[in-house]
Amino acid sequence: MDDFLFALDLTGTFVFAISGATMGTRHRLDLFGVLVLSFAASSAGGILRDVLIGATPPAVLEDWRYLAAACLAGLITFYRDADIERLRNPVQWFDAAGLALFAVVGANKALEFGLGPVSAVLLGMLSGIGGGVARDVLVAQVPVILRAEFYAVAALFGAAAVVAGSLLGFPPAASMVAGALLCFGLRFFAIRRGWRLPVARQRGASPGPGPHR
Amino acid sequence: MDDFLFALDLTGTFVFAISGATMGTRHRLDLFGVLVLSFAASSAGGILRDVLIGATPPAVLEDWRYLAAACLAGLITFYRDADIERLRNPVQWFDAAGLALFAVVGANKALEFGLGPVSAVLLGMLSGIGGGVARDVLVAQVPVILRAEFYAVAALFGAAAVVAGSLLGFPPAASMVAGALLCFGLRFFAIRRGWRLPVARQRGASPGPGPHR
Amino acid sequence: MDDFLFALDLTGTFVFAISGATMGTRHRLDLFGVLVLSFAASSAGGILRDVLIGATPPAVLEDWRYLAAACLAGLITFYRDADIERLRNPVQWFDAAGLALFAVVGANKALEFGLGPVSAVLLGMLSGIGGGVARDVLVAQVPVILRAEFYAVAALFGAAAVVAGSLLGFPPAASMVAGALLCFGLRFFAIRRGWRLPVARQRGASPGPGPHR
Repeated sequence: MDDFLFALDLTGTFVFAISGATMGTRHRLDLFGVLVLSFAASSAGGILRDVLIGATPPAVLEDWRYLAAACLAGLITFYRDADIERLRNPVQWFDAAGLALFAVVGANKALEFGLGPVSAVLLGMLSGIGGGVARDVLVAQVPVILRAEFYAVAALFGAAAVVAGSLLGFPPAASMVAGALLCFGLRFFAIRRGWRLPVARQRGASPGPGPHR
Repeated sequence: MDDFLFALDLTGTFVFAISGATMGTRHRLDLFGVLVLSFAASSAGGILRDVLIGATPPAVLEDWRYLAAACLAGLITFYRDADIERLRNPVQWFDAAGLALFAVVGANKALEFGLGPVSAVLLGMLSGIGGGVARDVLVAQVPVILRAEFYAVAALFGAAAVVAGSLLGFPPAASMVAGALLCFGLRFFAIRRGWRLPVARQRGASPGPGPHR
Repeated sequence: MDDFLFALDLTGTFVFAISGATMGTRHRLDLFGVLVLSFAASSAGGILRDVLIGATPPAVLEDWRYLAAACLAGLITFYRDADIERLRNPVQWFDAAGLALFAVVGANKALEFGLGPVSAVLLGMLSGIGGGVARDVLVAQVPVILRAEFYAVAALFGAAAVVAGSLLGFPPAASMVAGALLCFGLRFFAIRRGWRLPVARQRGASPGPGPHR
């Protein structure tokens, strides 16, 4: 079970790092900037989760294999950018996979640390979206989670499935697979079919880019 | 006393969440993005405070009522945006109230955890401004606290009043009410009368948006 | 030895705060905004380091002298901006010095808290770049570390020198001086000679500022 979790975590790290590295090469960052963005995208969620549940130092800093996976993904993306870009819209699928994996792993770890169901769902969601938020904030963009099709909602459902499975006494591995499939499936159909949540109607003339006055 | 603190904290959560949600609807985020921004604006300060004093998991994650208050505020703002926008400059008053409440609650909690007076003032200020900073960073704006009239200064004074009250042996509730009134009052008059702190004189031609060279 | 470390730390705080304050005055922030940016630039790296290794509350909050050093640097920069701007490209040299000092102090503290070599190098780098990242994110810019000449790389080498020295049994003070000189020297020559890491080749027409789709 621990090996299974670790493999999942490492896979999520790798795919999120590709998402971060792709964002980095698109913004014309240099090699090391791309590696930093790979690491941030892959690890910010897990680091945030571990800091919030008091599990310091964060797992991702204690085991060099996370860093290695993130750097490997960054190097492949950097030197093989052409191949990765050629795949149609690759980032979003890697992103969806990382989201699903991190949301369920994060919710499970929060449960193991004795947090309640609501906190565990929230921490699973934060684990899932933290890396993407860090990635987007670092390139000075409004995070895609705040606009994208069912992004954070999908992470929320994936984490909720893990917590529900735990409350119902299902084995964690089964709940996590189910939660990850649910999360990834939601994102998949949301992107494919353009599902969107409602946006507040805007009235008046200028929405205005100014500060909140 | 604990009930009093909890009610204050929940009220601050609610008003900050409205401030975050209003920012979200103005940036045309979808429903869930608005809720995420509500939660970030309402909770980032408290989460930062709790992480910094080592009180993990943060209180705001342990009690579902904070999340519920943030989501309720977000939903009301989202579906009743017209009403809220119609009030003149609503965000800044909600913001000032949240600032005042969080600054005094944060300073008081830091004192309870045994931090020294300077740290407690600083943590009170961080509790107050953390949510607003997170809200603004998430929509890729320079945080209003770095430009606004007496914003962080007001939080600083509110927190300092709580710490001063504690050093002088006054009851915490009295110090907190006084600190909150001081902070809100400073913001109120600063906005109304356009009080501003000095800005560095600029010389030379182009301030330039470039990096720091 | 502790005095030596503390003096180094305080010096790094001061020079990073000047870097933050200079960025603040260039963005026309008011006096308190400049002080907040001074404090963020000088302390975010150390706070991040302490939170990640579980050393809460962070040292920088517990000792008022860090805050005093940051505010002093901010006030000097604010009121003596003309003098500081007159020096050619001043920010980058202060920045390089702060980077070097924080990277070696951070790596050393991580080792003292029992972290492994890879984590200690990483935490040293994060200590070094954290303040600069916070400074740039707060003014809504892509952090210079993601583009600049050998920026994070220099911090990495400085931290690695400290860890290597520790593994080889050298006295910490010697390793730290060597690491700081290495880091500063790398930045110095990188800036002077325009050393740059490779940037991913861009193909196709528009790099496009859009989100990652």
